[in-house]
Amino acid sequence: MTKAQLIQQIKAKKSFLCIGLDVDLEKIPSHLLQMEDPIFEFNKQIIDTTHHLAVAYKPNTAFYEAYGLKGWMALEKTIAYLNQNHPEIFTIADAKRGDIGNTSTRYAKAFFEQMSFDAITVAPYMGRDSIEPFLEFSEKFTILLALTSNPGSGDFQMLKTGHKKPVFERILQKALTYKNAEQLMFVIGATQPESFKSVREIVPNHFLLVPGVGAQGGSLEAVCQYGLNAEVGLLINSSRDIIFAGNDVNFAQKASEKALEIQQKMEILMAHL
Amino acid sequence: MTKAQLIQQIKAKKSFLCIGLDVDLEKIPSHLLQMEDPIFEFNKQIIDTTHHLAVAYKPNTAFYEAYGLKGWMALEKTIAYLNQNHPEIFTIADAKRGDIGNTSTRYAKAFFEQMSFDAITVAPYMGRDSIEPFLEFSEKFTILLALTSNPGSGDFQMLKTGHKKPVFERILQKALTYKNAEQLMFVIGATQPESFKSVREIVPNHFLLVPGVGAQGGSLEAVCQYGLNAEVGLLINSSRDIIFAGNDVNFAQKASEKALEIQQKMEILMAHL
Repeated sequence: MTKAQLIQQIKAKKSFLCIGLDVDLEKIPSHLLQMEDPIFEFNKQIIDTTHHLAVAYKPNTAFYEAYGLKGWMALEKTIAYLNQNHPEIFTIADAKRGDIGNTSTRYAKAFFEQMSFDAITVAPYMGRDSIEPFLEFSEKFTILLALTSNPGSGDFQMLKTGHKKPVFERILQKALTYKNAEQLMFVIGATQPESFKSVREIVPNHFLLVPGVGAQGGSLEAVCQYGLNAEVGLLINSSRDIIFAGNDVNFAQKASEKALEIQQKMEILMAHL
Repeated sequence: MTKAQLIQQIKAKKSFLCIGLDVDLEKIPSHLLQMEDPIFEFNKQIIDTTHHLAVAYKPNTAFYEAYGLKGWMALEKTIAYLNQNHPEIFTIADAKRGDIGNTSTRYAKAFFEQMSFDAITVAPYMGRDSIEPFLEFSEKFTILLALTSNPGSGDFQMLKTGHKKPVFERILQKALTYKNAEQLMFVIGATQPESFKSVREIVPNHFLLVPGVGAQGGSLEAVCQYGLNAEVGLLINSSRDIIFAGNDVNFAQKASEKALEIQQKMEILMAHL
């Protein structure tokens, strides 16, 4: 998918919602457990009732790997279902991968070619030659962790370096010098909304993937204050709040109601652009 | 496995060699491609001819994920084969994972429980709550990326922070404050052997996993000069140099010869302890 197609979808749906498909067999409605592939069935029903309200879906690979082969199969079925039935949707493998050159290429092939995701999240710690291999795939996006939404984000991301700049800002700056940097997006957590001001000074035009709204305490409005740009430029992720809004036979309907609630807020925020 | 058991194995084999099982279908002998599971068959033969010379095996997950389900199955078979036939071997999933708290727990379960690896490599960027979930598993080891062996390692790992300390040293220091820090090991690349001096000042007793000897240009002797401690404290990884030493029907024999060559050097270096 191209950036223009993503923006077009955002404008058409009046939404910049990304739904995190972090499936947990202990939390899904018990009637699904009798099915052959409860994880895929859960995802399918969530997608069926929310795809008109969301522009992106983001399965976190940890939740699939934890179930071994069965989980990996459910992940493959989920991405195939999305690509077949909703080709307009932007799909993100939240995999936080990253390794030396040739090895990163393997990960890129796994997620961009084997499974045909549009984007993958990548950890920046190993630097240029761990990131550029992902950027070689055209019409695919590499979403670099910059400032995450968890409490531990302060441990290293906020360490002050020369010129008093925190590490995460140095990462944003450096990443812009990488080959095909226009195919980058960045993870900036909603839990530190004041950071969006300096982030937007460094990367005014790149899309930001924003976790941490909702269950983790971040506010949609606070993120939008500095985070929105003329092309929206934000993908706000919500996982648990939407997918576990209900836990009986009506779970997908409940998820859709919660997604609608968020989309309506987004529509209002987009009206100011 | 406990640290004492690992040290016992090192002393018994007079080796601190780790063999990287980074299988590439384009590089393995062509006669294996006719078999049902060429990746597993390749690994099995390498393990069969080298297990008396190596103390650890380290499959890098990227090489398996790149082949989708088939690759994931080969990885599961490889770790099962090691655990069943060579329970004394220290097994490392080179996965470079890391995510927020509960999600890291999923990765830990995938590799420590589903597949029963002894250790996993973890990226430090997200901080304490992304790392401690791995450390909760007893007799399992979390190998934190500190200073990697690739050219891009300078981009962020070497950034100077307060007190002129590079980021990777701050990571070593901070990690020592994490709960169950005695179950940590650290990745320190062989390509910057001068760093082992300051590393050993911060973490004198922890094991270091050292990539970059051989194909990437690092020297075993240079690493050992400052890296060795009284309990050896090093696992030196070699992948391509060993597993692709030959590429015909004798590949496993060639791998064994190359591993023996390295083990003999290690035996001499250990004699000084």
